Amino acid sequence: MLGKEYEAQDCSIAGALEVLGERWTLLIVRDAMYGVRRFSDFQAHLDVPKAILADRLRGLVQNGILQRRPDPGHHGRHLYELTKAGRELWPVLHALLVWGAQHRRPNSRVFKHASCGTELNDNAACPACNLTPDLAEIITEPQRGRRRLRHDPVALALRSPHRMLEPVKTA
Amino acid sequence: MLGKEYEAQDCSIAGALEVLGERWTLLIVRDAMYGVRRFSDFQAHLDVPKAILADRLRGLVQNGILQRRPDPGHHGRHLYELTKAGRELWPVLHALLVWGAQHRRPNSRVFKHASCGTELNDNAACPACNLTPDLAEIITEPQRGRRRLRHDPVALALRSPHRMLEPVKTA
Repeated sequence: MLGKEYEAQDCSIAGALEVLGERWTLLIVRDAMYGVRRFSDFQAHLDVPKAILADRLRGLVQNGILQRRPDPGHHGRHLYELTKAGRELWPVLHALLVWGAQHRRPNSRVFKHASCGTELNDNAACPACNLTPDLAEIITEPQRGRRRLRHDPVALALRSPHRMLEPVKTA
Repeated sequence: MLGKEYEAQDCSIAGALEVLGERWTLLIVRDAMYGVRRFSDFQAHLDVPKAILADRLRGLVQNGILQRRPDPGHHGRHLYELTKAGRELWPVLHALLVWGAQHRRPNSRVFKHASCGTELNDNAACPACNLTPDLAEIITEPQRGRRRLRHDPVALALRSPHRMLEPVKTA
């Protein structure tokens, strides 16, 4: 991670970026929110070199954003799951998503409040229920009419509506 | 900037991180929101090497987040000011600030709605007026009782309450 590079910056933004600011880190957190939990699934969906992925996962565990536990389905492997601190990064990722969609390229997915099906607004709130749903109360699905760029197992699993944090079924 | 590294990621978060994901970039945007406009002031407040600062400013201008114009006060120098796209990064920075303050270290500053003086909540909204103020309608001031870590000209200028985007007076 960025380590002590920002230590002279007396600011909680710098504090956040020390543990989130490396390349790929926030995209790993994004995938964990989609329910990706296995090393091989992160790798397939992100096309990231194994050494970098291993380094970033280690950092996220060290910094209390992911927790690692043995994978009951694969002896010797692990599952990576968001901690409470990790799940609380949703407003950061949603703000990046909204800005990116307005200024960079359209987003490929939509996010809806699970209990009523209403699309979240730019503040990640449900305008019908007038509340900001927790991550586990959000359904994500592909934007209609978009060309499908990715065909890896995670992308395939996410072509159907999928509740955030619910483990993706890839095998 | 990250260039094409995330081009296979069909996602507006990745699109945003392509132009924001390099070290120092979001802290430069933060300072621009505080009203820092001169190369020498960014450098004094960030302690960032000149070559890196020059590279990041160039990238931010190329990507439409800052605009550069001649500095009327210093022949041959420039001012860097946020574009509309740059100002719209406030929700991203505020979300990082809230998360960082909860999980990394307390924030050194508070943010208040200028017209009523009420502190903004974690959604960057004014709870008294029940609205989300624009950046130019926000006053920032140091958190009371905090040790002062920095004594550079920008830090000194920001010790008094300061309206966001209003140029900092450093000389």
